[in-house]
Amino acid sequence: MKKITKLLVANRGEIALRVLRSAKEMGIATVAIYSEADRNALHVRYADEAVCVGPPASKDSYLRGDKILAVCKELGVDAIHPGYGFLSENAGFARMVREAGLIFVGPSPEAMEMMGDKLSAKQAVKAYNIPLVPGTDEAISDVAAAKEIAKEVGFPILIKASAGGGGKGMRIVNGADEFEEQMQLAINEAVSAFGDGAVFIEKFVTGPRHIEIQVLGDEHGNIVHLFERECSIQRRHQKVIEEAPSSVLTPELRAEMGRCAVDVARACNYAGAGTVEFLLDDKRNFYFLEMNTRLQVEHPVTEQITGLDLVKEQIKVAQGEPLAFSQDDLTITGHAMELRVYAEDPQNNFLPDIGTLTTYVRPQGPGVRVDDGFEQGMEIPIYYDPMIAKLVTFGADRAEAIARMLRAIEEYKITGIETTLPFGAYVMRHPAFVSGDFDTNFIKDHFSPADLAPITPDEATAKVAAALGAMLLSEKKPKTTAATGETAGAEVSGWRRNRLGVR
Amino acid sequence: MKKITKLLVANRGEIALRVLRSAKEMGIATVAIYSEADRNALHVRYADEAVCVGPPASKDSYLRGDKILAVCKELGVDAIHPGYGFLSENAGFARMVREAGLIFVGPSPEAMEMMGDKLSAKQAVKAYNIPLVPGTDEAISDVAAAKEIAKEVGFPILIKASAGGGGKGMRIVNGADEFEEQMQLAINEAVSAFGDGAVFIEKFVTGPRHIEIQVLGDEHGNIVHLFERECSIQRRHQKVIEEAPSSVLTPELRAEMGRCAVDVARACNYAGAGTVEFLLDDKRNFYFLEMNTRLQVEHPVTEQITGLDLVKEQIKVAQGEPLAFSQDDLTITGHAMELRVYAEDPQNNFLPDIGTLTTYVRPQGPGVRVDDGFEQGMEIPIYYDPMIAKLVTFGADRAEAIARMLRAIEEYKITGIETTLPFGAYVMRHPAFVSGDFDTNFIKDHFSPADLAPITPDEATAKVAAALGAMLLSEKKPKTTAATGETAGAEVSGWRRNRLGVR
Repeated sequence: MKKITKLLVANRGEIALRVLRSAKEMGIATVAIYSEADRNALHVRYADEAVCVGPPASKDSYLRGDKILAVCKELGVDAIHPGYGFLSENAGFARMVREAGLIFVGPSPEAMEMMGDKLSAKQAVKAYNIPLVPGTDEAISDVAAAKEIAKEVGFPILIKASAGGGGKGMRIVNGADEFEEQMQLAINEAVSAFGDGAVFIEKFVTGPRHIEIQVLGDEHGNIVHLFERECSIQRRHQKVIEEAPSSVLTPELRAEMGRCAVDVARACNYAGAGTVEFLLDDKRNFYFLEMNTRLQVEHPVTEQITGLDLVKEQIKVAQGEPLAFSQDDLTITGHAMELRVYAEDPQNNFLPDIGTLTTYVRPQGPGVRVDDGFEQGMEIPIYYDPMIAKLVTFGADRAEAIARMLRAIEEYKITGIETTLPFGAYVMRHPAFVSGDFDTNFIKDHFSPADLAPITPDEATAKVAAALGAMLLSEKKPKTTAATGETAGAEVSGWRRNRLGVR
Repeated sequence: MKKITKLLVANRGEIALRVLRSAKEMGIATVAIYSEADRNALHVRYADEAVCVGPPASKDSYLRGDKILAVCKELGVDAIHPGYGFLSENAGFARMVREAGLIFVGPSPEAMEMMGDKLSAKQAVKAYNIPLVPGTDEAISDVAAAKEIAKEVGFPILIKASAGGGGKGMRIVNGADEFEEQMQLAINEAVSAFGDGAVFIEKFVTGPRHIEIQVLGDEHGNIVHLFERECSIQRRHQKVIEEAPSSVLTPELRAEMGRCAVDVARACNYAGAGTVEFLLDDKRNFYFLEMNTRLQVEHPVTEQITGLDLVKEQIKVAQGEPLAFSQDDLTITGHAMELRVYAEDPQNNFLPDIGTLTTYVRPQGPGVRVDDGFEQGMEIPIYYDPMIAKLVTFGADRAEAIARMLRAIEEYKITGIETTLPFGAYVMRHPAFVSGDFDTNFIKDHFSPADLAPITPDEATAKVAAALGAMLLSEKKPKTTAATGETAGAEVSGWRRNRLGVR
């Protein structure tokens, strides 16, 4: 057991604050780093000590592992939490941290390397009988053999560039007759886009849902899963709404996917918090996609349904502590929903809309949690991910989590920039989302910018009621500003539009 | 079943907002009332409609049932939620509401009357074998007979004025020899203070803890309890810190007190949310004190450990719905802690310190909920209860709820007025509180204003660590402002006092 006494958080924004808060609750001294663009950021103020590590560009600051290690040496830091993004999945950095005699709050460099590459990850989990999307495991050298595999798998199939990701370098092939031509085009594209012509083929999964399982392992060989997160609502192949539990998983399927996720973690001797991503098709077959060897943006929904503080769990594991619970101790309580509030314009293809938070009023009340890194008057820097906040709601069941999300979105007041808040409200009211019957094509199938054209609060209320199928609406009678006859001295101000409402 | 479509909240401040939020989530239209002092209050902005009902003094505004009913008629309101305080336990008002054909979100006037008077309440629960503090049930007419009862009960005993309350009109009698004299003094005092010389005697309970049980009943005869709240930390006989569960209750004692609380509710055919207050002595005997026939200030701690929204439950019951769960469905998950943040000066006998919230920054992050009714720049009106907010924290266990409370208090930034925040931090760090070994005498036994004399953050950290007995402290080495040699371009800003810290 190695007690962490001073922790450096090698990150910025909401996740830096998130980690600092848990460290503070554990009585651990904290060090923040920041770029010149983040001098006034909240995480800088929150930490016990803060050090500027360079100019705004990430490569000159948050990605400068050498500078970060120098800060650790100077300030007597004994552990580094990388957050997500930046250096969090950089095995080389994790190795440098270890070699400097410090604790890296994350898995071993070996586990990161093994899971960091799609093909080596698939290779690693083979022994555990983890279902993979049918296709080729390795870069295709023999096109004729690949065509035979494609026929076996069944069209449509996907050709994917090994070096691709996030939807880049993919081609759909609908039949055997176009296979060779598409293959050649895909290889050419991969060469020009990534400088690497390696491609592989995969079954094209229809009606796919992105379901991921949170796992947690310690250094003593114990690994548990903390159930699933449903992350199918994506724009530009990036998650924007996540929830737990998923409305599509049965207890049996949950247990089976959980077992598989634990096996994936076992395949790389995983210690710490990690996420195993699966694709679930419309027949509830699931396929392993990849493992993320870090804390996930959407970890709060898991925290809300399990009651665990995942950052504290990460720190305890990094200190060499065994997990304090076994799989049987874990249960799901309630339902949690997360909306990523991005500085993006959903009416303009979700393009970033950077600027100043002229107004910034957070929602409050029961069942609402806001993880953010900004205050009113601050600017969203252009150098980094344009996420302003994670708006998390939770309730006894999914309907309550949705109702609270709608209420919280209405209370959230942001002016100065466009955000994904109106899009979030749109999704929460959409019958497909409300019924749980949706997949990763939700935006393509159900959303157009015109859907966010201004509506009146009355219409909004009607939509909510219709979608949840729950409430009778109050009779809309003409609003009065006259005083009531009997109440001398009483002033009836009449109908007021909610001033805290969605813009 | 009578669906509520438009709800008037006959209250102000945090509880008005609290009720409005739940109503909004249920799709119910809302009406706020306000006094002239509350024109700019948040609850006024939050509601769909808002009506001024009179001048600042409560008796001219929030207590004017006639004006409130006129507003309901004018605006087509079909239900009234009274919150707590003001008209919430006024059986006459509840009756007027019913007679006007509206729904009163609360119990029947009969239940309120039965439980509103201490003697009639004790009389009502007798048939259910509820343990009462030994003493006389009725006003004493025969002093000699009372003395015999006092001897039987055992000294010390308390003489209490029937019309008293909140610690007023009480006398301790230590032995039989002073009984007659003290009795005469008590009667004289009661006459001059309350215009009513009726007194009764009660056993003086040593090491008393204030434990209350939340109950919930419907109009179909179903009654459950939602476990206990520990409310022993009081100043001026008023609660200031509450938590759930209590660290002193065993599962058996919890079940027994729960059963008794349900019986008390049954004795008055209770429908809605109510609270049965008990005194628990140092031998874990419990005695029924009284029943509060309304939502309690401290209801959020129960919400956090049960996952229920008590305001929604109240509204559902008022609509005639049966409870959706039975006692066996209810479990305690985690631990919750509430600090009432009052505009009071704990260094000056907790006297109100009214003024303007020059700075007002709420704490955030996992496990923190703030129920309040103010924003930065607002004034705390002198006309009403000086509570600014309820700071609620929750975690997997009591230690985590305490650690989060300390972290949240440190993040909570209020300037312009003195508050109970530093007192809260003091209690959270006190060994008696941390160990769970405390009673209603905590402030008398363990607190003096000097305890809040300014301390350095280092001392504070040491105190937390000592109290929780958990964490090693980081080595305190001299703070540097020099740049590290190896990090060209890096600027080491060195030690910073947390700018979000407690003032």
